[in-house]
Amino acid sequence: MAKEPKLSLIPLGGLGEIGKNMLAVRFGENILVIDCGLMFPEEGMLGIDVVIPDITYLLENREYVHGIVLTHGHEDHIGALPYVLRQLNVPVYGTKLTLGLLQGKLKEQNIAGDVELYTVRPRDSVQIGPFKVEFIKVSHSIPDAVAIAIHTSIGTILHTGDFKIDHTPVDGQVTDFQRLSQLGEKGVLVLLSDSTNAERPGYTMSERFVGNTFDEAFRQATEERLIIATFASNVHRLQQAIHTAYKYNRKVAVVGRSMVNVVSIASELGYIDIPEGTLIELEEANRLPRNQVVILTTGSQGEPMSALTRMALSDHRQVEILPGDLIIISATPIPGNEKLVARIIDQLFKLGAKVIYESVSGTHVSGHPSQEELKLMINLTRPRFFVPLHGEYRMMIKHAELAREVGVSPDNIFVAENGQVLEFTRRSGRVAGKVTAGKVLVDGLGVGDVGNIVLRDRKLLSQDGILIVVVTINRETGLVMAGPDIVSRGFVYVRESEELLEEAKTKVKSALDKCNYRGLSEWSSIKAQIRDTLGRFLYEKTRRRPMILPIIMEI
Amino acid sequence: MAKEPKLSLIPLGGLGEIGKNMLAVRFGENILVIDCGLMFPEEGMLGIDVVIPDITYLLENREYVHGIVLTHGHEDHIGALPYVLRQLNVPVYGTKLTLGLLQGKLKEQNIAGDVELYTVRPRDSVQIGPFKVEFIKVSHSIPDAVAIAIHTSIGTILHTGDFKIDHTPVDGQVTDFQRLSQLGEKGVLVLLSDSTNAERPGYTMSERFVGNTFDEAFRQATEERLIIATFASNVHRLQQAIHTAYKYNRKVAVVGRSMVNVVSIASELGYIDIPEGTLIELEEANRLPRNQVVILTTGSQGEPMSALTRMALSDHRQVEILPGDLIIISATPIPGNEKLVARIIDQLFKLGAKVIYESVSGTHVSGHPSQEELKLMINLTRPRFFVPLHGEYRMMIKHAELAREVGVSPDNIFVAENGQVLEFTRRSGRVAGKVTAGKVLVDGLGVGDVGNIVLRDRKLLSQDGILIVVVTINRETGLVMAGPDIVSRGFVYVRESEELLEEAKTKVKSALDKCNYRGLSEWSSIKAQIRDTLGRFLYEKTRRRPMILPIIMEI
Repeated sequence: MAKEPKLSLIPLGGLGEIGKNMLAVRFGENILVIDCGLMFPEEGMLGIDVVIPDITYLLENREYVHGIVLTHGHEDHIGALPYVLRQLNVPVYGTKLTLGLLQGKLKEQNIAGDVELYTVRPRDSVQIGPFKVEFIKVSHSIPDAVAIAIHTSIGTILHTGDFKIDHTPVDGQVTDFQRLSQLGEKGVLVLLSDSTNAERPGYTMSERFVGNTFDEAFRQATEERLIIATFASNVHRLQQAIHTAYKYNRKVAVVGRSMVNVVSIASELGYIDIPEGTLIELEEANRLPRNQVVILTTGSQGEPMSALTRMALSDHRQVEILPGDLIIISATPIPGNEKLVARIIDQLFKLGAKVIYESVSGTHVSGHPSQEELKLMINLTRPRFFVPLHGEYRMMIKHAELAREVGVSPDNIFVAENGQVLEFTRRSGRVAGKVTAGKVLVDGLGVGDVGNIVLRDRKLLSQDGILIVVVTINRETGLVMAGPDIVSRGFVYVRESEELLEEAKTKVKSALDKCNYRGLSEWSSIKAQIRDTLGRFLYEKTRRRPMILPIIMEI
Repeated sequence: MAKEPKLSLIPLGGLGEIGKNMLAVRFGENILVIDCGLMFPEEGMLGIDVVIPDITYLLENREYVHGIVLTHGHEDHIGALPYVLRQLNVPVYGTKLTLGLLQGKLKEQNIAGDVELYTVRPRDSVQIGPFKVEFIKVSHSIPDAVAIAIHTSIGTILHTGDFKIDHTPVDGQVTDFQRLSQLGEKGVLVLLSDSTNAERPGYTMSERFVGNTFDEAFRQATEERLIIATFASNVHRLQQAIHTAYKYNRKVAVVGRSMVNVVSIASELGYIDIPEGTLIELEEANRLPRNQVVILTTGSQGEPMSALTRMALSDHRQVEILPGDLIIISATPIPGNEKLVARIIDQLFKLGAKVIYESVSGTHVSGHPSQEELKLMINLTRPRFFVPLHGEYRMMIKHAELAREVGVSPDNIFVAENGQVLEFTRRSGRVAGKVTAGKVLVDGLGVGDVGNIVLRDRKLLSQDGILIVVVTINRETGLVMAGPDIVSRGFVYVRESEELLEEAKTKVKSALDKCNYRGLSEWSSIKAQIRDTLGRFLYEKTRRRPMILPIIMEI
């Protein structure tokens, strides 16, 4: 019998972090990629727009990459594609809504024409190079989400994507327990599963729960205008808001570019059902009595430029918040956004509005599985090997613990890192090395051109500002022809600190004299001298350490 | 009958925010101040160390300010005193531990000798100018906390300070229900109460609950070294950790400057009971078997320079985290710190330690009252007027709602802002104007010298960095003698962007030529020209907007 090809799973993103999900599946030489997401910048990544996975490994093996398959249409699963496809143009497979949302992004970036997209449906099986790839329906906070099974000659790899177990999903599309169970019956070699909520005991509530909250709020709000802020991509949530509005004879206006976009794509593709005449323009809504209107809006995370934030700051051109408005924030703050969201809520209260928000009542449920659901997934599919995906380290650790609890052998559980190569045979698994993986920072048009040095400088500049010392020196004589001048930004308020800056100038002059006296003519030593003298002086006077930038002009 | 003096309550901090608590009580011309706290910088306050209240109003009325009375020793109630006392040196009144902690701060800032401190005990009554001030025991997350009653001829003002209703406090000092009830029986004119937890239903658990968690953890950890991170000032928590250590035959080492400081002050003043031989130096702890050691440490908020953070990053000189260490994070992340704390937990897990933290189990309870406790306080004291204190706007709104529920007349509830003057007679209350109030930013030695312009510059610098264009021009001829040179920081990585910066230089040159051609010789118009040309060019090339700073040197 010929030696069987090796199977390797190589996470390129999403492990030890929330976001930029990407996994390379390698069988022999052939590679298939699952998902290609982005992440929002972490603290300290000053000025960065988004973060995408480092795909060096794929570029080095580009001739073996057969395609990218997508689990669903969230940014953290498809958002890096516009960048990645420019460098690695391979076919992309996904369900209808997922590709619909992707296409919108590709169009924005002017690369839609160049990309091969293949639409798949749940229970479809597609041959992609040597991989037989099957798509399996799962519930999530966006429709058309799938798990992905890859069948190889040594066994089946099952990647859950993001999922939850919702027994009463809004679109009626229950997670495909039957197919998952069949796979379990036949035997799954490796299960890779969503760890986002692995710290939460119990079950995640059904999306319907939020529908009930909406219904109750609409029923009671006989006089108020309703404004519901939620994630643009949560089509189920939008659907429930629209249906509830219809039931209570209200018209719906949608505000915020991304939400308008999603509603238009989702309704075009048949993923959202809008009773005729229910959806109206904002101008029209503003002419109706307030208690006949619902506004659906972005901004549930307090994002500074979002529609809800502008409304809260009385800075939105078309929507003015008034006493008697009822605002429902139908979302939980993503870690890091707590203060932004709190500020918006406070502002809305100050304008006299009523606000229903998470810490008070049931306006949001998660799209990810809690512990009992995670155990169910493992027990349905009975994998030999288990790899927790999608989560910060402590969540993956917890998920691994759950897998042990339901009987996966501890030796067969791999809590891995991005870039680690997990190699499997029919019977064994091991960490077999490491490939390049990491974060590529996108800032404006620059992809990967902002690195540690630039970030360190931004950090320094943000703390105590900058002091620029300019002096023009005659190259021949070494004499100072002009300056020293000192310009500062972000250090002190200049008008109130003239004395300090004058003193600083004197310090620079004496440093220059000292250099002259010592015969120092290397610009670099003169600069160092200025930096030291001035740095010490300013720290003593202010206990601040601005960046000091000496510039010497030669004549 | 002579006209009675007016009573005004003027919050100078702590309303609509968490932190920098300060209230001026004015009766006729006379003023008494309650608390004088600091706040940690909000997002956007780049480089700022702490924020303190604006005391312009007090300085304008300095001859009428009779003193400052303190409710307890937390930073947000005493932390601004070292700054404020320099400008307004008035007597300070507080309980023993509160003044002990304050004195530590004053010594650090070299002003301890100049300040008059008066120690008071619960149930003491002190005459301060025309004010009869009474101190009433309350439970909180630091010992020696008091509510403050000020008796005036038109009625009693009761300020709760921070409190909780702990029926089984660690130091046995239960909130003085009897005295509060007596005041209620006689009649309280205005109650001002802590809104921090007004959004939380039910009761806050007793501090003992954490003690039980500790006990359970110690009982199970037969092999592990224990490391407990908590707030330095939570003396009750430290006490429980020390008692539990003693019970399980472990020695305790304290790490982190502020915690060492608090333990030393609290034990000196008799607020913490340390069985002989229990407290040891870290060096000694490192020589003992790991399962005979407990380390108490700061850093429960993931503060970058704290002891726990350094341990987690393997950067602490004396403590190395090893597999088999059990770390208890005995705190909840303060809003804004969630990500910092999560990162530390992940790092500790990666080092192989076990970590018990909040989202998993009962390692922390709040020091503030939940809704049922807030209602109890109102029902005990039966005030005519009610002012929610200490909280962000939505918390104060919620607290006002609770007051209405227990029967305070809606017209008698004032949700106020910092600087608003609340004026009361025996029977009526109203908002009677506004005084200066706000945030004073402290950066290094500078108090109040960093304003909006400096912060805006820091923000700009942090986003896309800075580009400095220097050119030396002959004043007489208008000819360029040296440059233009371009220096950038935090914009692009210079080595990889030489071409871009060369092009930028060319743009500047042609802008200068254009100015020359047009006969422009005003430096300011030349600078504007450079800024525009370069800004447009760079945005087109990079979609970034660095700060552009043209500097013209004259010869």
